[in-house]
Amino acid sequence: MRINLLLTGHELMTGDTLDSNSAMIAQLCFDQGIQIAVKSTIPDDMPLLISEIERLSQGAEVLIVNGGLGPTSDDLTAEALSKVVGRPLAVHPEAMAHLQAWSVRRNYALSEANNKQALLPQDIELVANELGSAVGFKITHNACLIICTPGVPHELNTMMVNEILPELGSMLPENIQPKRVRYRIFGYGESNLQQAIHEQYPDWPEQVELGFRASMPLLELKLKVDRKQDHALLDVWKSKVEQLLGAHIVTQDDSSLAEVVVKLLAERKLKVTCAESCTGGKIASLITEVSGSSKVFEAGFVTYANHIKTSVLGVSKEILNAHGAVSEAVVEQMLKGALKASKADLGVSVSGIAGPSGGSDDKPVGTVWLAWGSKEKVRTHQFYFPGSRLFFQKIVSALALDLLRRELLDIDEKADYFQTRRYRSKS
Amino acid sequence: MRINLLLTGHELMTGDTLDSNSAMIAQLCFDQGIQIAVKSTIPDDMPLLISEIERLSQGAEVLIVNGGLGPTSDDLTAEALSKVVGRPLAVHPEAMAHLQAWSVRRNYALSEANNKQALLPQDIELVANELGSAVGFKITHNACLIICTPGVPHELNTMMVNEILPELGSMLPENIQPKRVRYRIFGYGESNLQQAIHEQYPDWPEQVELGFRASMPLLELKLKVDRKQDHALLDVWKSKVEQLLGAHIVTQDDSSLAEVVVKLLAERKLKVTCAESCTGGKIASLITEVSGSSKVFEAGFVTYANHIKTSVLGVSKEILNAHGAVSEAVVEQMLKGALKASKADLGVSVSGIAGPSGGSDDKPVGTVWLAWGSKEKVRTHQFYFPGSRLFFQKIVSALALDLLRRELLDIDEKADYFQTRRYRSKS
Repeated sequence: MRINLLLTGHELMTGDTLDSNSAMIAQLCFDQGIQIAVKSTIPDDMPLLISEIERLSQGAEVLIVNGGLGPTSDDLTAEALSKVVGRPLAVHPEAMAHLQAWSVRRNYALSEANNKQALLPQDIELVANELGSAVGFKITHNACLIICTPGVPHELNTMMVNEILPELGSMLPENIQPKRVRYRIFGYGESNLQQAIHEQYPDWPEQVELGFRASMPLLELKLKVDRKQDHALLDVWKSKVEQLLGAHIVTQDDSSLAEVVVKLLAERKLKVTCAESCTGGKIASLITEVSGSSKVFEAGFVTYANHIKTSVLGVSKEILNAHGAVSEAVVEQMLKGALKASKADLGVSVSGIAGPSGGSDDKPVGTVWLAWGSKEKVRTHQFYFPGSRLFFQKIVSALALDLLRRELLDIDEKADYFQTRRYRSKS
Repeated sequence: MRINLLLTGHELMTGDTLDSNSAMIAQLCFDQGIQIAVKSTIPDDMPLLISEIERLSQGAEVLIVNGGLGPTSDDLTAEALSKVVGRPLAVHPEAMAHLQAWSVRRNYALSEANNKQALLPQDIELVANELGSAVGFKITHNACLIICTPGVPHELNTMMVNEILPELGSMLPENIQPKRVRYRIFGYGESNLQQAIHEQYPDWPEQVELGFRASMPLLELKLKVDRKQDHALLDVWKSKVEQLLGAHIVTQDDSSLAEVVVKLLAERKLKVTCAESCTGGKIASLITEVSGSSKVFEAGFVTYANHIKTSVLGVSKEILNAHGAVSEAVVEQMLKGALKASKADLGVSVSGIAGPSGGSDDKPVGTVWLAWGSKEKVRTHQFYFPGSRLFFQKIVSALALDLLRRELLDIDEKADYFQTRRYRSKS
């Protein structure tokens, strides 16, 4: 099925707004086995809108138009469409009823500008907008189904999921029944995961499409088949991927690393703490972003300066002098101090050189020591993440959470990042 | 000047990659007084590439093509262009020299695939790529200058700034000499700033274009004129805007709130600390993201649970019981405790209800108390930010930094957010 996309809006042409709508539409369609053929983006300009709707409807089965449904004078989609299909604008009773119900719900008086949103090409069919004032609408022209959708992202998303995708699905050939599985992975970059799969499974079947999406610090891996007869094949290769990746798979849903860790802690009724030097509060912040984290997190310590490591966490001055702040002995004492001060069951501590300054030959920027575990069992490891300060802080915070996750799941298998070049261990 | 944009890449059609390149190009051009007319996005498909280059070069003075310059088989731009302009592909000696120099610098052996990057339409002109292996190139066709650029964002950015924008600038009519001024503002949303300007200055001249860009928690405001004769006008209205916004202007460059605060602290040789409950480490994390922050930040305390507020910061149990954790008395004691434990000169403390649970009729979700200042002078204020947990944590952390900024600058003028509906004060 050929499907084109037309986006309209001044803000898309000045670069002031990043276009996330078209990526959302593309992703939702792709997961249904439908790929966007051509995408065109134009400002709110009547002649251009008319010519682009006409052009993009030719040779396509579906054209999704996004934007230009609002109440202001630069919202031109309905009028442009009315000219393309040769039907005059008229008040659409159902659209007007929607507008009125919407205004009553919001306790908001409709303006004349709002009323414009019910002025649609005659006899057009509506597409429900559960969330906003702007109804969607659709009509067939040039044997192409033209669907006009609102620019507000959450309204668009709901309309796509509830209204448009089911309709597109019904237009697909019968044997097109996509099935997909998705993993969020920590410890692999896109290129080394691609390589690992390629090396392990040179006979990867082309029916099972692999998709990667970097959403730092996690990598998303998607396996997808489009046809019903390939569903069983997907299951076979899904198992193989799971075997290859093992505990590197953090989740099969949308959870973040912190969400997974908080859930595991809550299930086990355990509390966690952290003692941070180079990550400066980011680990605590990631944990406390999770709603419900107050049940598992009571205290975090940002001990940036050495004298604070001593006064707050009880790290000994002698050890600081002998080994330096970025050392195994110091992260061990930081962890023990934090566990004691917080009365938490589990904890993680980090000390490293985030850069750009502060590195030495012996301990270059990117060097970091972590300690994690409980009073009874502390583990430590040194890692090396050269890169920008922000990258370093982000990856080290994620690593700390992943080490907690593995600890909570009693995973003995060593993570790849203990030995690969990417997550180079210096110990 | 009419300028079109063509983006190519499979990843742009599946939604796996958010297209930030076109926004970057559009923004850079817009600041030069040039607006993109039409933007088209297509997959790596030869017939489509050929027809789109042909179509978009018609009636435009410039067509920028982005992507498809890499070494792999789905990088088709050079070949497509060679067909459009009717010149066969040939090894371009200068491009080959660039590739070789690049590979020597990276200590990397060129593969045959790499050599493809020097295979360009005959007699084409190069556009330098300082950072990557893929040279850009340009040629005139249909009286349109077609410029092909790499998809890697930082390579594209450098090429735009150093090579392409100067060339585009030279093509503009002589009276087009854009001048702009940019502010980053805390304490206004886009719509209330728009309204404030509109109300204060109903006679705003249309030559001075206003641009808004939300980059939460800051709002970016841009004033721009395109013609040389309007430069003086810009200066007049610039002063008026500065008068209206006063201390709400955080910076005129790209600095974040935290960067401004760290800079002010460093200049004054002062140290800062924070005691966080509901923001859970985010304030410390924002400060320590700034390189050089170790000079001004030594300790932060994430005291989520009440018993930690007591054991770590010395908040009295009686006060916690009498007033609750979200109270003026508690944030005052948290601040004093943090100042004492860290020996910092300045500090900020926060305690609030981030939600979604934990609210009450008296203290609904979104309620937050802040204390800021020094041992000698502590100020407190209650604010109310209903919204999602993440929004709340982000805005409260930014607010804490802004209060520190105002304190450091000795600003007595009360910020708008102490009284407006948006940043509603409950005190």
